[in-house]
Amino acid sequence: KNQFKIAVLPGDGIGPEVIGESIKILNAIAEAFHYTFEFTYGLMGAEAIYQTGNPLPDETLKICKESDAVLFGAIGDPAFDNNPDAKVRPEQGLLKLRKELGLFANIRPLKMYSSLIEKSPLKKEIIEGTDIQIFRELVSGIYFGEKFTEENGEYAYDVCKYSREDIIPIVHMAFQEAQKRRKKLTLIDKANVLDTSRLWRKVCKEIASEYPDVELDFMFVDNAAMQLILNPKQFDVIVTENMFGDIISDEASVIGGSIGLLPSASIGESNALFEPIHGSYPQAKGKGIANPIASILSTAMMLDYLKLEQAAEKLRKSVEYAIENKYVTVDLKAEQPYSTSEVGSFIADYI
Amino acid sequence: KNQFKIAVLPGDGIGPEVIGESIKILNAIAEAFHYTFEFTYGLMGAEAIYQTGNPLPDETLKICKESDAVLFGAIGDPAFDNNPDAKVRPEQGLLKLRKELGLFANIRPLKMYSSLIEKSPLKKEIIEGTDIQIFRELVSGIYFGEKFTEENGEYAYDVCKYSREDIIPIVHMAFQEAQKRRKKLTLIDKANVLDTSRLWRKVCKEIASEYPDVELDFMFVDNAAMQLILNPKQFDVIVTENMFGDIISDEASVIGGSIGLLPSASIGESNALFEPIHGSYPQAKGKGIANPIASILSTAMMLDYLKLEQAAEKLRKSVEYAIENKYVTVDLKAEQPYSTSEVGSFIADYI
Ligand SMILES: CC(C)[C@H](C(=O)O)[C@@H](O)C(=O)O
Ligand SMILES: CC(C)[C@H](C(=O)O)[C@@H](O)C(=O)O
Repeated sequence: KNQFKIAVLPGDGIGPEVIGESIKILNAIAEAFHYTFEFTYGLMGAEAIYQTGNPLPDETLKICKESDAVLFGAIGDPAFDNNPDAKVRPEQGLLKLRKELGLFANIRPLKMYSSLIEKSPLKKEIIEGTDIQIFRELVSGIYFGEKFTEENGEYAYDVCKYSREDIIPIVHMAFQEAQKRRKKLTLIDKANVLDTSRLWRKVCKEIASEYPDVELDFMFVDNAAMQLILNPKQFDVIVTENMFGDIISDEASVIGGSIGLLPSASIGESNALFEPIHGSYPQAKGKGIANPIASILSTAMMLDYLKLEQAAEKLRKSVEYAIENKYVTVDLKAEQPYSTSEVGSFIADYI
Repeated sequence: KNQFKIAVLPGDGIGPEVIGESIKILNAIAEAFHYTFEFTYGLMGAEAIYQTGNPLPDETLKICKESDAVLFGAIGDPAFDNNPDAKVRPEQGLLKLRKELGLFANIRPLKMYSSLIEKSPLKKEIIEGTDIQIFRELVSGIYFGEKFTEENGEYAYDVCKYSREDIIPIVHMAFQEAQKRRKKLTLIDKANVLDTSRLWRKVCKEIASEYPDVELDFMFVDNAAMQLILNPKQFDVIVTENMFGDIISDEASVIGGSIGLLPSASIGESNALFEPIHGSYPQAKGKGIANPIASILSTAMMLDYLKLEQAAEKLRKSVEYAIENKYVTVDLKAEQPYSTSEVGSFIADYI
């Protein structure tokens, strides 16, 4: 197969700018490797609310379901964040899309670039050699449990619910990844307090017997939040529930020095979505300063998923070349930084 | 008043060792300042389960209710952590005690010691001058909402619930603390996803009008987990719900270099409990290597609460003196470290 349908959802804030660079890259790859990518654009998030009243229009969902993969930019808008009473919110679009496409596993690799090690707020000796892969459960837990606000705003609740079926697939995925790596899997939970965490622990223990070559250990989330900074090298593969994964993976992103570098893949049975882990960064919108590399590396994860490993490899090499030659945006370089589109073009040209 | 009833709950792991040093200190203070502390010991945690089957025996609760303040060591035991089926767990004792005593606010000051700045995994320029006070809500949220595990272990849930009444008192406390400091309060929440977080945001906004001199801002918990490491100096007072507070305050503890230094106070209408933020650290139990300073500084917070500010001040000075003279345990010193009891005695002698 060398023809692919890609759904493109630029989203909010800097989303359109970084997605633009991913498209540039894919066009370069199409030319170099003789593939055809057919792009179909969809609205999602605040932009979709402004234009249609709906953060995930049916049309967008349809485009995504019919595509081989989804490329997504970012979501979120301060106008909604600052209004706790808003009934419709941009984030609902992304959450609904994750659920509808069954994207149960959010995968975030944490790779260090030696030329950027000085950028980290952590000391070199702490972080050097860190290589972590985080598997975050993405379509259950407190994000998707029942939610309720009493009509006079007297109280509210959110339910965190997990069934065995919600847990089993991502745990297998994480064990399989650990087998290919340093053979260590850490479950992050709060099993000393939460029933759902105890269920996670139980299911992980049961599944562990199928992967006798992988060492499974458990860490409470509060301790994990410390250990990630004190000694990140102790981790290989991490698996965790939705909310803890949200917090822990963002925390882990500081290790490498810039969140602007970090990609993610959200994988389901028959669909997949690729997005940078940074947010919509509204303050930077339209300024041409956003780092496109997270979006570009998400595109590389998409190429892997489409089994275009050679192209993915070439793209990662090109990104490394740009980083090593300091062809980077202002977040990684104080003097003479390049713009979003200059960095994208540099990488595209190298391909 | 110069006579005080102190309930003493040594708890599990290194709890008894560090609490022993706090008692040593209080005896020195009693002598120097002519106070009388009457200590009554109670069982709690794994030790209480082993001896009575109950992680919080009625007798212990009674002792605590009748005391002027509670000193607590640590809780937790690997025998329970590794058994997701255990019906009775040590932590239930602490959670029940917090609830029964109405300890709605857990306060964790984060202070930097210039002589220890090199110990931090973070770079000096990032952390120098950091001074954060965290207010964690302690008796509601997902810790205390309904919990359920289906009898065949097919699914489980935990409910996070907040009412206005749960939120209002701690928000006032946090605003009042901000007024005494740099006049900035940050609410950490996940208001783009959770109904309970939106209620927190609403209540904070309403209360803000009573504190016009304090600047209130909001931060999503995933972003906060990054910002704490990227730029901790941006924070003054933080207020947050129970689970986020658990994670964020442990994460913040790495900034200063050792969790073995950090105290906490848990305050209610008419009761208060003081405990180091570190856990029971079972691997170190009985080895005489635990850092007693977190427990000793928790004791200083207790002295403040009892309005013995002069004694509290003297105690803090003594701790600083010990730290500056490198009279510290192995977590802070590779060569020639002192034992738990040597550090405690050094501080007691200085008083
Ligand atoms: C935008 C928000 C709903 C989302 C999440 O919390 O999942 C984001 O933080 C992420 O991690 O992708
Ligand atoms: C022991 C545990 C139940 C407790 C908590 O999660 O509250 C601890 O981590 C803490 O922060 O005091």
